[in-house]
Amino acid sequence: MCGIFAYVNHRHPCKRKYILQTLINGLKRLEYRGYDSAGIAVDERVPIAADILPKKHALGPVALIKQKGKVKNLDEKIYKMKDFDFEVEFDTHVGIAHTRWATHGVPNEVNSHPQRSDKNNEFVVVHNGIVTNYKTIKTLLEGHGFEFESDTDTEVVAKLLKYLYDNKENDEISFSTLVERAIQQIQGAFACVFKSRHYPGQCIATRRGSPLLIGIKSKSKITTDSIPINYSSGMAGLSEIKLERNQSVSEFISEDGGENGIEFFFASDASAIIEHTNRVIYLEDDDVAAIVEGGLSIHRVKRGNRKENGTRVIQSLQMEMEQIMMGNYSSYMQKEIFEQPESVVNTMRGRILWDERKVQLGGLVDHIKEIQRCRRIILIACGTSYHSALATRQLLEELTELPVMVELASDFLDRSTPIFRDDVGFFISQSGETADTLMALQYCKERGALTVGITNTVGSSISRMTDCGVHVNAGPEIGVASTKAYTSQFVALVMFGMMMCEDRLSKRERYDEIFDGLKVLPDLIKQVLTLDQEIADLSEKIHKNKSLLVMGRGFNFATCLEGALKIKEITYMHSEGIMAGELKHGPLALVDRDMPILMIVVKDQVYQKCQNALQQVVARHGRPIVICTEDDQETPKFASHVLQIPHTVDCLQGILTVIPLQLLSFHVAVLKGLDVDCPRNLAKSVTVE
Amino acid sequence: MCGIFAYVNHRHPCKRKYILQTLINGLKRLEYRGYDSAGIAVDERVPIAADILPKKHALGPVALIKQKGKVKNLDEKIYKMKDFDFEVEFDTHVGIAHTRWATHGVPNEVNSHPQRSDKNNEFVVVHNGIVTNYKTIKTLLEGHGFEFESDTDTEVVAKLLKYLYDNKENDEISFSTLVERAIQQIQGAFACVFKSRHYPGQCIATRRGSPLLIGIKSKSKITTDSIPINYSSGMAGLSEIKLERNQSVSEFISEDGGENGIEFFFASDASAIIEHTNRVIYLEDDDVAAIVEGGLSIHRVKRGNRKENGTRVIQSLQMEMEQIMMGNYSSYMQKEIFEQPESVVNTMRGRILWDERKVQLGGLVDHIKEIQRCRRIILIACGTSYHSALATRQLLEELTELPVMVELASDFLDRSTPIFRDDVGFFISQSGETADTLMALQYCKERGALTVGITNTVGSSISRMTDCGVHVNAGPEIGVASTKAYTSQFVALVMFGMMMCEDRLSKRERYDEIFDGLKVLPDLIKQVLTLDQEIADLSEKIHKNKSLLVMGRGFNFATCLEGALKIKEITYMHSEGIMAGELKHGPLALVDRDMPILMIVVKDQVYQKCQNALQQVVARHGRPIVICTEDDQETPKFASHVLQIPHTVDCLQGILTVIPLQLLSFHVAVLKGLDVDCPRNLAKSVTVE
Repeated sequence: MCGIFAYVNHRHPCKRKYILQTLINGLKRLEYRGYDSAGIAVDERVPIAADILPKKHALGPVALIKQKGKVKNLDEKIYKMKDFDFEVEFDTHVGIAHTRWATHGVPNEVNSHPQRSDKNNEFVVVHNGIVTNYKTIKTLLEGHGFEFESDTDTEVVAKLLKYLYDNKENDEISFSTLVERAIQQIQGAFACVFKSRHYPGQCIATRRGSPLLIGIKSKSKITTDSIPINYSSGMAGLSEIKLERNQSVSEFISEDGGENGIEFFFASDASAIIEHTNRVIYLEDDDVAAIVEGGLSIHRVKRGNRKENGTRVIQSLQMEMEQIMMGNYSSYMQKEIFEQPESVVNTMRGRILWDERKVQLGGLVDHIKEIQRCRRIILIACGTSYHSALATRQLLEELTELPVMVELASDFLDRSTPIFRDDVGFFISQSGETADTLMALQYCKERGALTVGITNTVGSSISRMTDCGVHVNAGPEIGVASTKAYTSQFVALVMFGMMMCEDRLSKRERYDEIFDGLKVLPDLIKQVLTLDQEIADLSEKIHKNKSLLVMGRGFNFATCLEGALKIKEITYMHSEGIMAGELKHGPLALVDRDMPILMIVVKDQVYQKCQNALQQVVARHGRPIVICTEDDQETPKFASHVLQIPHTVDCLQGILTVIPLQLLSFHVAVLKGLDVDCPRNLAKSVTVE
Repeated sequence: MCGIFAYVNHRHPCKRKYILQTLINGLKRLEYRGYDSAGIAVDERVPIAADILPKKHALGPVALIKQKGKVKNLDEKIYKMKDFDFEVEFDTHVGIAHTRWATHGVPNEVNSHPQRSDKNNEFVVVHNGIVTNYKTIKTLLEGHGFEFESDTDTEVVAKLLKYLYDNKENDEISFSTLVERAIQQIQGAFACVFKSRHYPGQCIATRRGSPLLIGIKSKSKITTDSIPINYSSGMAGLSEIKLERNQSVSEFISEDGGENGIEFFFASDASAIIEHTNRVIYLEDDDVAAIVEGGLSIHRVKRGNRKENGTRVIQSLQMEMEQIMMGNYSSYMQKEIFEQPESVVNTMRGRILWDERKVQLGGLVDHIKEIQRCRRIILIACGTSYHSALATRQLLEELTELPVMVELASDFLDRSTPIFRDDVGFFISQSGETADTLMALQYCKERGALTVGITNTVGSSISRMTDCGVHVNAGPEIGVASTKAYTSQFVALVMFGMMMCEDRLSKRERYDEIFDGLKVLPDLIKQVLTLDQEIADLSEKIHKNKSLLVMGRGFNFATCLEGALKIKEITYMHSEGIMAGELKHGPLALVDRDMPILMIVVKDQVYQKCQNALQQVVARHGRPIVICTEDDQETPKFASHVLQIPHTVDCLQGILTVIPLQLLSFHVAVLKGLDVDCPRNLAKSVTVE
């Protein structure tokens, strides 16, 4: 949550209009990460002679523009600013931008980012994450006379920088050294980009826990594919390493040394960069990246263990522009729901060898023996990803014959759950950056467990930190309510289960059944999607309800939780997923003529038990909407409304049952006039605890 | 669910008024098990000469009286019956009675029990449980010309008896043989009591899965303390063992052989019997008990394995009448909430040796070494009992350093979870009869796991079937919404954890802390109960809400689920327990000015995280009611209303945080004018799947 974007044009003249447009566009791509408020910091005027004198005189003033609400509001505000000359051209310029998901302090202008060090905007920062020790630092800085204006945790970062600058031992201290010193005082998770009137044309970025990547675009050829890291002494902050510019910079820069212009883009994720360049660097925790005079260098306080990689590779993004465009759909969420016949194919592509009837997950192939020997599989995740774990747990238990535990990452950490060397931990996260899941991963690594990542984001923290893993390849997911990532995670976990039992004769029949099920899955999903209009009509009937209970059990219980979550997230209706087996232990009291109920009854091992639950609900005058399979003659008799879906293998049925609920939540939200992609109070990619 | 009661007076003259009163009173004691409808079967008139002729002429007609709704309604209906002479005296009489929780068929008169074989009421039966193969039997009987009048599964049992009677090979077939043959055709769970005009003065009872016990009351001394079992041949139903009356009966009966009168009481649980006698026999699965001419005999088709006990012991109930009386309270639930300072003492009594600082759970002492050596502890339960497992899971993980899994019994069964010989399964159930938990127990036994019962009912199926266990000794719990059983289960599980680590030096400090916490627990509970009026006032403000979210995490997450369940159960308000750590993954979208929210924030390891959640809710204009500890200055600042409770050891705090929610649900239900002890659609002791 929170999106960071920054744009540096070095010796690449741009009109202010273009710079502002670029920043605003970048924010729009990141808007799914938060939309409580947005803000930018840009140069107030073209640098004059004084600005390029020795730094102590450099005072290129910085303008802050912030606005509550979505990025669109900020955009409108900017173009209403009368004293701004949009046509003025900057040869070199640093602009930073932020779209906020409020954690500390209500969403308003003063709490918006960029946060600043003082009224003169000497240091400004955009931040994604949470500074957990901000109260301590705040107290300290207040003792030194700083006055705080916002309720944010971020403001301490800007003010700390100014404090370090004001108390610097000499004038040679670089901007990156200041940042390096500052982050040693900060606890918590962050990705930050800094700009300062004292360092015109420079931009510093750093991260710990929250994602940040840098895009590079140059007219001339980029001459290197990796950047070496500069280590300061172990006593960072006390001694300063003098950077010979050519030493750190010359290796990466473009053929012309940046003389003919170079552009840098900083962003929380790739979707904001791909329209400019596909050449990117993913920063690692505690990296400090500095743009100085058009050169990029990466600094770290000290070298960690020997295995630590001493360079950062410039990678090529595997992403197409159309993947992040909405196309003919009214929202990203709708687009992503309808993409599912393709996205599950992408998840299977190259992994299922249809002719050989084999499943080969490249990222796991070297570890599968080790996983087979483990004592316990633990699936750890949050939110929708947690539901994908629940949905496949039973199958994994069946195919692996191992105990499989499913844990909410936050609860797993709260409990300091016992973990042993012979455990295997799966960490499932669409963004690969989910803070709680990431911390759980750290926790399991420390205890020697084998760690497996299931993410949708190449280069994400989870995919880098785990021993092995699977990219679900669902393509960029932008709607805040996750849809296609869920079904792809589901398929990925099923494929893992199949790999685990490939060698088992007794599981062969089951294996074949699932294999054939996966083959026709895309067609069956298409068939479910034809229910769209019927579900839209149904939504008319229920969109005014305040509550909705979603009931089911067995393989489809996860669908109930996931469906209820979708409805909560984007319709604000209080929906709850209820284990049908628990009905008699309490929830049945809620059932009457008026309580809207949705039940999932499919023909599998628990069909009879689901029938019993259905009968009980009907006996209490409930009038359930039922999702059942086309081959079921009995169930529709008891339903007030039936949604019939194709029948498939029991363990894959959950993929087909969840789609009507995705569509239902979508249509109800549209009917209620809500912003489907940007539900209130939420944001995608929860990078704070 | 469903309560069975029967009263047999043999040579013990009673007026019809007294018999009816006894049956109605019995039902009232069992009403918590269901209150959809009630019914009785009694003799229509005093037997005349023809009735005591050889059986084929015996046609003492049976009257059925049934009424929808609570037992009170049936009572009123009976006393309005003009053609009934209440003063007529029966020397010997069999009356059976039933209070129903509807599973198959809506609650109405025709679906009420007793169910009958035909319009002449030749065979009548009361049944608790579910006959799972009733459709098959129904089809069969319809083929033989039977016409069914109800939608119940039970009707097939009565009709099957008549079918067997009509097709009997000779006239000597006893009533108990007919029942023995019938139950071999029946699948599912049941406890049944039968009466027939063909066998006047006789009463047959049987069970499988559902509980049933028999109380014996005689003016003269009971001469035996156990009853031998009569085995028919292995080919039951085809050959008939001729029972010499004296052979099976004389051993148990009273000194006078029943000549001076003897009374029998059949009931689903002890609370309906204790006011008559404390001498009881618990039937085992597939026992058929027969009262013939005042003698009780117990029959089984065949002897099982060698370990099978060949007798049934007459036990003494350890229960006081006042335990099942409401006293000065307006409902059982209220009484049970206020009993908690004493009930937790009873749970600890004799088990915590205060001077020696030792915990000694008698039922576990011989098994603790074995449990310590296990690979995994699995806590299995439903509803409130499941929450007690969740509440103590973290502590058990900490004290045992073993993986602890918590499973909903229904889901555990649906998933066919892998279970191994080195696993230990805990089965937690207030009644000790919960069907799903019982089946999970069976499942684990078959796989060789060590099984441990945690129940509140001596002699219950779970306490009999498990290898070892703990009775929580909370005293009879009659309110359908469980309160004191929860806190006692909680304490019992904590004591188990302490026993597990008694020998560990590194855990000593923690042990001592918990030990001291338990010592003052009753006083702290008393202190929490003084919030009663404050909570009653608070209820005024929220009782009109439709929804309520209850949020917390760590040790207090279980409190959120349990509190939300209480509110669901007795106020019919849609409340949901939400893991505060998951807020950002969806539920936060529900938060606004109007959504009623209750948060639990206590000073433990997750205090800061709870504070973060609180801040987020407030930032989204939520106005939370907060339960926090008295030593917390910070939290009340953000609350719309604060309930302050005493601070205790983190792992016991959940006992104190749940009580305000118990009280809240109680007061809201009272304000809404609802029947606190008999919430709609529910019943205690869920003996069906």
